[in-house]
Amino acid sequence: MKKYLSPGLLVLFFVLSAIGHFAHWSATLQFILSSIAVIFVAGFLGKATENVAHYAGQRLGGFLNATFGNAAELIIGILLVKEGLFDMVKASITGSIIGNLLLVLGLSLFAGGLKHKVQRYNVSLAGMNGSLMIVAIIALFVPAVFLQTHVLQENDRTSLSLVVAGILIVAYLLWLVFSMITHKDYLADVTETNNQKDSHEHEEPIWSKGRSILYLVIATVMVAFVSEWLVHTLDTFTAKYGLSELFVGAFVVAIVGNAAEHSAAIMLAMKNKIGAAVEIAVGSSLQIALFVAPVLVFVSHLFSRPMDIVFTVIELAAIGVSVFIAKSITQDGQTNWYEGLLLIAVYCILGVSFYLV
Amino acid sequence: MKKYLSPGLLVLFFVLSAIGHFAHWSATLQFILSSIAVIFVAGFLGKATENVAHYAGQRLGGFLNATFGNAAELIIGILLVKEGLFDMVKASITGSIIGNLLLVLGLSLFAGGLKHKVQRYNVSLAGMNGSLMIVAIIALFVPAVFLQTHVLQENDRTSLSLVVAGILIVAYLLWLVFSMITHKDYLADVTETNNQKDSHEHEEPIWSKGRSILYLVIATVMVAFVSEWLVHTLDTFTAKYGLSELFVGAFVVAIVGNAAEHSAAIMLAMKNKIGAAVEIAVGSSLQIALFVAPVLVFVSHLFSRPMDIVFTVIELAAIGVSVFIAKSITQDGQTNWYEGLLLIAVYCILGVSFYLV
Amino acid sequence: MKKYLSPGLLVLFFVLSAIGHFAHWSATLQFILSSIAVIFVAGFLGKATENVAHYAGQRLGGFLNATFGNAAELIIGILLVKEGLFDMVKASITGSIIGNLLLVLGLSLFAGGLKHKVQRYNVSLAGMNGSLMIVAIIALFVPAVFLQTHVLQENDRTSLSLVVAGILIVAYLLWLVFSMITHKDYLADVTETNNQKDSHEHEEPIWSKGRSILYLVIATVMVAFVSEWLVHTLDTFTAKYGLSELFVGAFVVAIVGNAAEHSAAIMLAMKNKIGAAVEIAVGSSLQIALFVAPVLVFVSHLFSRPMDIVFTVIELAAIGVSVFIAKSITQDGQTNWYEGLLLIAVYCILGVSFYLV
Repeated sequence: MKKYLSPGLLVLFFVLSAIGHFAHWSATLQFILSSIAVIFVAGFLGKATENVAHYAGQRLGGFLNATFGNAAELIIGILLVKEGLFDMVKASITGSIIGNLLLVLGLSLFAGGLKHKVQRYNVSLAGMNGSLMIVAIIALFVPAVFLQTHVLQENDRTSLSLVVAGILIVAYLLWLVFSMITHKDYLADVTETNNQKDSHEHEEPIWSKGRSILYLVIATVMVAFVSEWLVHTLDTFTAKYGLSELFVGAFVVAIVGNAAEHSAAIMLAMKNKIGAAVEIAVGSSLQIALFVAPVLVFVSHLFSRPMDIVFTVIELAAIGVSVFIAKSITQDGQTNWYEGLLLIAVYCILGVSFYLV
Repeated sequence: MKKYLSPGLLVLFFVLSAIGHFAHWSATLQFILSSIAVIFVAGFLGKATENVAHYAGQRLGGFLNATFGNAAELIIGILLVKEGLFDMVKASITGSIIGNLLLVLGLSLFAGGLKHKVQRYNVSLAGMNGSLMIVAIIALFVPAVFLQTHVLQENDRTSLSLVVAGILIVAYLLWLVFSMITHKDYLADVTETNNQKDSHEHEEPIWSKGRSILYLVIATVMVAFVSEWLVHTLDTFTAKYGLSELFVGAFVVAIVGNAAEHSAAIMLAMKNKIGAAVEIAVGSSLQIALFVAPVLVFVSHLFSRPMDIVFTVIELAAIGVSVFIAKSITQDGQTNWYEGLLLIAVYCILGVSFYLV
Repeated sequence: MKKYLSPGLLVLFFVLSAIGHFAHWSATLQFILSSIAVIFVAGFLGKATENVAHYAGQRLGGFLNATFGNAAELIIGILLVKEGLFDMVKASITGSIIGNLLLVLGLSLFAGGLKHKVQRYNVSLAGMNGSLMIVAIIALFVPAVFLQTHVLQENDRTSLSLVVAGILIVAYLLWLVFSMITHKDYLADVTETNNQKDSHEHEEPIWSKGRSILYLVIATVMVAFVSEWLVHTLDTFTAKYGLSELFVGAFVVAIVGNAAEHSAAIMLAMKNKIGAAVEIAVGSSLQIALFVAPVLVFVSHLFSRPMDIVFTVIELAAIGVSVFIAKSITQDGQTNWYEGLLLIAVYCILGVSFYLV
């Protein structure tokens, strides 16, 4: 990757796409500039994550990457909630969950599996991730079923959304306590020791610990900005090609907006650090479902109109099938290229369906 | 627990709440007396179960506990069926299943997990339990889907319910043959030997084998009576506070009516006998779904009007999500405090939803 | 089995039922002749499969058996598609999937489990099979949900079916690459070595390698023909007894049409070659869902009217519950008689429901 990481080109294209965005250059030019910039900053982010993972262990590194990646999504979400664009918020939450569970995870397993026959990671972590995914689905599914079959007053509808959102946030915070404090070693990666030894032998970290963390923060912020500029230009394109808001929210925005997770997870998987790759992909989608989405429900109460937690039937179906296949594939703590391919196949089926609707 | 088990106070409060019930004292007084009595008899039952488990092994002890606990529910169910209160029967079956799978199991894993970092039990038993839960769900789900999409004659509707109920009862009886006779050792608890050795060293059983079984029977019967008296007083309370019949049937009755399972399971989990705790919670809900519910369908034919096996959409949804999360959490034969917390979170989500409807 | 395999009787009854079919003898006589012929040819097929499995290993033997078995179904499917009988095609696809997953697998586990306490096979293969089943369900479920909730133009409906069908075919072909080439040993049967040693000691293969394969082909073709003649006579019977087309397609045709898989799988299970038995049952249903069904969608475009991939709600429900229980039961790579019985119980529940509708 070294030649793509030239700091000069990185800064140059970042600045150019910034100017293009704020000076309202032509959509096509903005699109080209920000696309090139995304490649550079994603590469930078991947390098920074890898360095931090070297110091912090695979899981913490993955968590940091997922959190910084989702910070951008949270900010964009708040802006959309403020403008009352609830449908687009939910479409992009949906897209972000299925994008991470199917596309990011799928490409990681596929790329990693082509290089390494079978990749293994902590089976207890796989089980816990699976259960958390099921809880996330239940939290979205139960209110939808109850509101589908019974008429509730506006007031009760709001209460239901707030209580469910509150339960999810508490569950997520306690998950951090569990996974980072009380049961850190229980979920630790079995191959961590070997990998770290390998890393020490084969590739010395190029940056110091402090510098790695600093670069991780900077890279994530840059990715967030560039992604948003790129997403912004897509609006024009999609209007031109007649794509539906749902498809753009759930697929185009999710692919571009998760560029950070994509590049980092795939790079780690190819280095046989599959535990960190899974942590980024699955951890990121869990963070969206258990933290970002419920926080947005609460945030909506600060503005004019409350947003409920009820998703449409096809959004629920899309999240549901993504969770089921991802859980089935990850639960044994072993991955291979074909499992990655199955995830991508499901992503394609959902993509075509959303595109045609 | 010793000081709570004073036999004198146990008998005193049991008799007082009996008198209160039959002499129609004020609802508030009845409520206070039977609540105190429940605490004493549940403690007594826990001690008796523990003693029986000492002699009989964790699984048989758990099975006996679940069976005695459900005998009460079966009797109450028959009384309700006789009066044609089918909706309340189904609501209380639903509540009993989700109460055991989410609340009893959740509190057991949580309490046990706070004392012991990771608790393990037989993974083959976990798998079999999971498959039985799936069969129970399918047996409730299939007739509901077919009747939702096709119009059946009253006659065929009754036949369908009877055949499905018959299949479940046969499956449950053969499960007893399988788990108690042909594959008893296959499902035996891996840690049984260690635990029994521990028990021998640390805590001698305080009663003889015969006396333990006798006390188990007496304690279960007392719990059944006291629970019913307590449930009875709740009617007045719930009318006063405007709670729906569905919520009361599915949550209040289930919590109070399963006091026996609650106290025994939690106590066993804290003593690291998680296999017995799971057997009580999961075994009890399986017994309700595969035996009590279908028997009630047959029993209804002895009275005026036949009851079908078709549950409402939200009851099915509640049982379905409970099975999915409980299966996901128990299937690896390892438990921890956070898994208990996830079950409780799902219970809260369902509780709020039922409350608001 | 030797005495049933008398080549003379085999040929005699095959020829007699052929004559009966083409000379339009009475339906009752045709039924009796082809039923007897099915027993002989199924026994012949079982013997041939066993011999091939001896040379080729359990998995490849199972795959060959499943493929030859489904070749017949593909041909019958094409004939039905040509005549525009889409409902019957889908009913027989549904029946074939649930017949293999529930009845063939269930009887195999039950019969094998009665002779052998616990039977084990490769747990990685079990996991991969489970994930493939989930993908198959998703591919049928997603278009159905999207078309249920949104109105699509005829054009888009056709595109959606074709794209999903194409994805499934690619996924299936790559599964063959994965399971037969890149990860053959990863999915190999753990007990293969032992079993082969046992076979060498106890039962020498009675035919040479080439002859075994030749006989496998001949036997499969004979089974295909005899099954079809038998199915043909059933039409008359079912008309007489007033059975619905859905029930006949999904149950009667599936039971008779899968006679080959039935006899071979059960025979292998009883010889403790459970890996090969599972491969036949699960592998056959995967082949139907991921290859035969999508190929029929494409084939329909060669004729007048395109067939879509959208199944009815009860067909989807039946396939869905079959996949869930089969996945739950097979995922630990261990089987016993009770698990077989649970599968048969679900098959009975579905059978009664389809019968009454």
